[in-house]
Amino acid sequence: MQIVSGHILHNLAKKLWPFNRSITGNGVRQTLAIIKKHLPDLECIEIPSNTKVFDWTIPQEWIVREAYIISPSGKKICDFHKNNLHLIGYSESKKIKLKLSDLQNYLHSLPEQPSAIPYITSYYEKRWGFCISQEQRDILEDGIYEVFIDTDFYDGYLTYGEVFIRGSSDKEILLSTYICHPSMANNELSGISVTTFIVKWLKGLKNRRYSYRIVFLPETIGSIAFIHKNIDHLKAKIIAGYVVTCVGDDRNYSFLPTRIGNTISDTIGMHVVKNLCSNYKIFKWNDRGSDERQYCSPGVDLPIASLMRTKYAEYPEYHTSLDDLLSVVTPKGLMGGYKMIKLAIEAIEKNCYPITKIKCEPFLSKHGLYPTLSTKFTKKNIALISNLITWSDGTKSLIEIADNCGVPVWILYSLLNKLKKLNILNIHYK
Amino acid sequence: MQIVSGHILHNLAKKLWPFNRSITGNGVRQTLAIIKKHLPDLECIEIPSNTKVFDWTIPQEWIVREAYIISPSGKKICDFHKNNLHLIGYSESKKIKLKLSDLQNYLHSLPEQPSAIPYITSYYEKRWGFCISQEQRDILEDGIYEVFIDTDFYDGYLTYGEVFIRGSSDKEILLSTYICHPSMANNELSGISVTTFIVKWLKGLKNRRYSYRIVFLPETIGSIAFIHKNIDHLKAKIIAGYVVTCVGDDRNYSFLPTRIGNTISDTIGMHVVKNLCSNYKIFKWNDRGSDERQYCSPGVDLPIASLMRTKYAEYPEYHTSLDDLLSVVTPKGLMGGYKMIKLAIEAIEKNCYPITKIKCEPFLSKHGLYPTLSTKFTKKNIALISNLITWSDGTKSLIEIADNCGVPVWILYSLLNKLKKLNILNIHYK
Amino acid sequence: MQIVSGHILHNLAKKLWPFNRSITGNGVRQTLAIIKKHLPDLECIEIPSNTKVFDWTIPQEWIVREAYIISPSGKKICDFHKNNLHLIGYSESKKIKLKLSDLQNYLHSLPEQPSAIPYITSYYEKRWGFCISQEQRDILEDGIYEVFIDTDFYDGYLTYGEVFIRGSSDKEILLSTYICHPSMANNELSGISVTTFIVKWLKGLKNRRYSYRIVFLPETIGSIAFIHKNIDHLKAKIIAGYVVTCVGDDRNYSFLPTRIGNTISDTIGMHVVKNLCSNYKIFKWNDRGSDERQYCSPGVDLPIASLMRTKYAEYPEYHTSLDDLLSVVTPKGLMGGYKMIKLAIEAIEKNCYPITKIKCEPFLSKHGLYPTLSTKFTKKNIALISNLITWSDGTKSLIEIADNCGVPVWILYSLLNKLKKLNILNIHYK
Repeated sequence: MQIVSGHILHNLAKKLWPFNRSITGNGVRQTLAIIKKHLPDLECIEIPSNTKVFDWTIPQEWIVREAYIISPSGKKICDFHKNNLHLIGYSESKKIKLKLSDLQNYLHSLPEQPSAIPYITSYYEKRWGFCISQEQRDILEDGIYEVFIDTDFYDGYLTYGEVFIRGSSDKEILLSTYICHPSMANNELSGISVTTFIVKWLKGLKNRRYSYRIVFLPETIGSIAFIHKNIDHLKAKIIAGYVVTCVGDDRNYSFLPTRIGNTISDTIGMHVVKNLCSNYKIFKWNDRGSDERQYCSPGVDLPIASLMRTKYAEYPEYHTSLDDLLSVVTPKGLMGGYKMIKLAIEAIEKNCYPITKIKCEPFLSKHGLYPTLSTKFTKKNIALISNLITWSDGTKSLIEIADNCGVPVWILYSLLNKLKKLNILNIHYK
Repeated sequence: MQIVSGHILHNLAKKLWPFNRSITGNGVRQTLAIIKKHLPDLECIEIPSNTKVFDWTIPQEWIVREAYIISPSGKKICDFHKNNLHLIGYSESKKIKLKLSDLQNYLHSLPEQPSAIPYITSYYEKRWGFCISQEQRDILEDGIYEVFIDTDFYDGYLTYGEVFIRGSSDKEILLSTYICHPSMANNELSGISVTTFIVKWLKGLKNRRYSYRIVFLPETIGSIAFIHKNIDHLKAKIIAGYVVTCVGDDRNYSFLPTRIGNTISDTIGMHVVKNLCSNYKIFKWNDRGSDERQYCSPGVDLPIASLMRTKYAEYPEYHTSLDDLLSVVTPKGLMGGYKMIKLAIEAIEKNCYPITKIKCEPFLSKHGLYPTLSTKFTKKNIALISNLITWSDGTKSLIEIADNCGVPVWILYSLLNKLKKLNILNIHYK
Repeated sequence: MQIVSGHILHNLAKKLWPFNRSITGNGVRQTLAIIKKHLPDLECIEIPSNTKVFDWTIPQEWIVREAYIISPSGKKICDFHKNNLHLIGYSESKKIKLKLSDLQNYLHSLPEQPSAIPYITSYYEKRWGFCISQEQRDILEDGIYEVFIDTDFYDGYLTYGEVFIRGSSDKEILLSTYICHPSMANNELSGISVTTFIVKWLKGLKNRRYSYRIVFLPETIGSIAFIHKNIDHLKAKIIAGYVVTCVGDDRNYSFLPTRIGNTISDTIGMHVVKNLCSNYKIFKWNDRGSDERQYCSPGVDLPIASLMRTKYAEYPEYHTSLDDLLSVVTPKGLMGGYKMIKLAIEAIEKNCYPITKIKCEPFLSKHGLYPTLSTKFTKKNIALISNLITWSDGTKSLIEIADNCGVPVWILYSLLNKLKKLNILNIHYK
């Protein structure tokens, strides 16, 4: 049985930090290679460039050899090898000299976050440009700058990783996280790290009611390619699942529903987030922004919601160099994310329909469940056991019962087992 | 294509002002004659006095030749020809001399609105009496007053006007407004004026999905007579509609639902009013007070709601001489009423079920719908288009989609057309 | 026709005060004997000790001959014959001398309510002990105390009383109150007294739509025994009903729903409580604590809610000697409880589906229901009659119509009769 700690999760994120991930290319493959060390049966799927996937086309691979600017005084700035956020994602090659005033047209910074390098991409239109902190931009000297961008595009593959874990049922739970973001921590090294260790935990379980399909893929084009390749299978088998994203900071717990809004993924995801802390946040489908957009799109209609700590676009460091492994993503934050996903999966696994076997209330004292001296104050002590039994009428799922009882569902697991052993109730599955 | 302005609407109301409208009689016919100048195919229906219409009987016609009081000092006061509100509606003839103290029993005024002449009728019990401002009543001199009321009742007709406009479908939208109020502006010259120009606009439309039936009738007894004459047809054909009343002041927008409460008239009426301004008011069925009482009555059950600016009985000038064409009903107020009715009808006409043709999100850039440079701030720009597409799953009407997107439905019309032309989605009708 | 007053109700409670009620024994039989004087056809059912009833076993009878403590200075304290709360219910015999410090282990008091003797029982584990006020406990002298408890357990019966009143239909309304509490007033002499007089009223009614089954039984084990004996009959016949408990103080009106939550007992119980006063309290199923726990348990599923004044466990005197017939339960409080139960039963009896016979609104003046002079202010006067008619479409029960009209249902009874006589509407039953 693995012992997971925040530091273990954090260390994996640190190991993945340097690679230049994008929607294609070696950064993606390097990332999958590290994951594969943890998950040896991770399968890497490669979809050739130019393949049509629904309304989209798999783009060429992008490779960056080097990218930087030489200032008039000869200093190398915006060096891609120092921070891969400096180069706009999918920039084309460029070797050019230009005045500062002309260079400014190709620089991107965030005046309101002067120390941050923004994260910008231009996947589908040929462009070039650099991202730079406002602080650095403000002190650029006048004169002639030399731009060196040595990149390449070529027909290759879009690569994603997939793990399948068989359970008693061939019905599947899907977990999806994305691997296309360069060096940023919450969005999205946190998702990769947490998901990797969730898979290790799942594989270590002795009994699994459901099968599990876990994908590590580039956002949007990756999930579209995955759905395109597997749509009939997915529609037939997937009964629940989550996009795992932004699960590493220790601020909030957040939930974003499926488009339909009332699937088992919704009921359970909402329950988990609401019961983990008091300052959780429940978003609406209109607030969506990751791969649930594809999974839940009309005609695909998979029951995939999103579980997050602080949601993308909702924290100040989002999509900048400030989204780091120091102040934003912490071991404690990652551990909270891991716990949230684990609780949600356990809740799906254990979600049964209990039914009381005894008419009228059971004689709890006989079963050792009731204090024998009735005073003014004892009645409340057995409220939970009594509530669990009273709601166990065979029509309510354990998660509904937990909501009716006003407790986290995980409080009920051992109690349920006890009542089953005492022959007070039975459980069945739908 | 007609150009409608607030002044055109206001001018029609001014032209209709002087006639002594009541539930029967020449004032009604004079009013319909003016409307017919705008709507040449207006048909006037006459129901003979004493006809049984459900629980009611068509009353005799009432004619007023003159009505006034001569004061002790010989002044003519409460002269019907100066203001038709002075005489209680359906007053019987009277020629009598009496002391001020006795006359007081036949005078009606509003102490809390001292400058207002109240509007009072006694359709179904023979009575006589005068309405007078409290200010004038307070200075009446002692002495003997001479009352002259020269009216007549005779077997004639209840008259109402009806226009039918054929559309592609034989399903009908009903608009109903009333013509029985004497010289008062919001309640009810505004309804007549706005409805008249809505009909002109409807007739000018090239394509109409639905047919339209529009009635100008005396309140209550008129709608009862109309329903009585046409109940089988109405129940078979009417799919939506509105009572158009109090649509001329520029204060509020108001909605009163059908009795059933969830018809298409309700969904759309509510949507229009909520999206027209922020200080709208949604009433309940228990607040009803006009012809929806008949259209929605049990056994009739037509889906007719009410669209209003400031609702009858909700503004201080209501049912008094203060409800005028100067300070209460304005060109701007009437234009707002016209716009509201037009938006509601358009929303019914255009209410379709869009369905996305592409699995997963469309590649918006390819269709020219997406900025190619992805920054932290661009995602929100395409939210509306993305939301329109995501909710277009074939199960939601355009009005529901607009509510889901949090925008007025009329914002979506051109966008929907664009997406249809781009072959991204299809629409169908139920 | 009986005249019930608060004093009559209070007097019955006073007469029942002294008996040492418990879940079995003579106190129960003495109580039933008094009730039988009011209700001669009360049938007493006796279930032998050791009978299995679902998960429970009927206990032996318990008899108390005497119980007290002699203090070191020779004073008799905690005398059962002075207050039957002094002895823990179902205490075993004991004759023992012990030091104060040892005696303390067998004493029970309430430090926060120093003048109160608590009510404690130990039905299902052999124990002994005394309940004493904190004030008395605090001044106990050091030294040796002599404990005398002379009780006995023997195979006998659990006894409960049952009345059946036949109505037009064999569908039954169940009322259940409990008779196992010793000398305490709100919980539970109030329930016995109010229920007794409700039965007298029911028997005096000329027409009863439903049959009535009323039980006076020991809480929990009594209702379980009753259900066990009659479950098939009860499930086939009971269509509504209430646990009558804590109906004697004049503070609140309270409602606790059935487990299912939307039965006719719920709709009507809630309506009655909400319309009786403004400071009512609606509880949730999780707050339950009396015999509804058995009636509504999964597999039994009877539609039994609870109607109360101030609910058990919600008032400070609950389960102590302070719950008395002086300051807690008053004639006014009992009369309010009686009225509440009566209103609920009447509402069930009279709950019909009215349907308007006239299309469009009736001509109210013709039927003498409308003032003939229409002014600005008369419209509101006829709102109620108009609302009653408009909601009478045959699909809504009278209780729903009352809620729609925003009035107590009992306001509608005479109005409904009037409209029926005028042939304006019809009623039918479902």
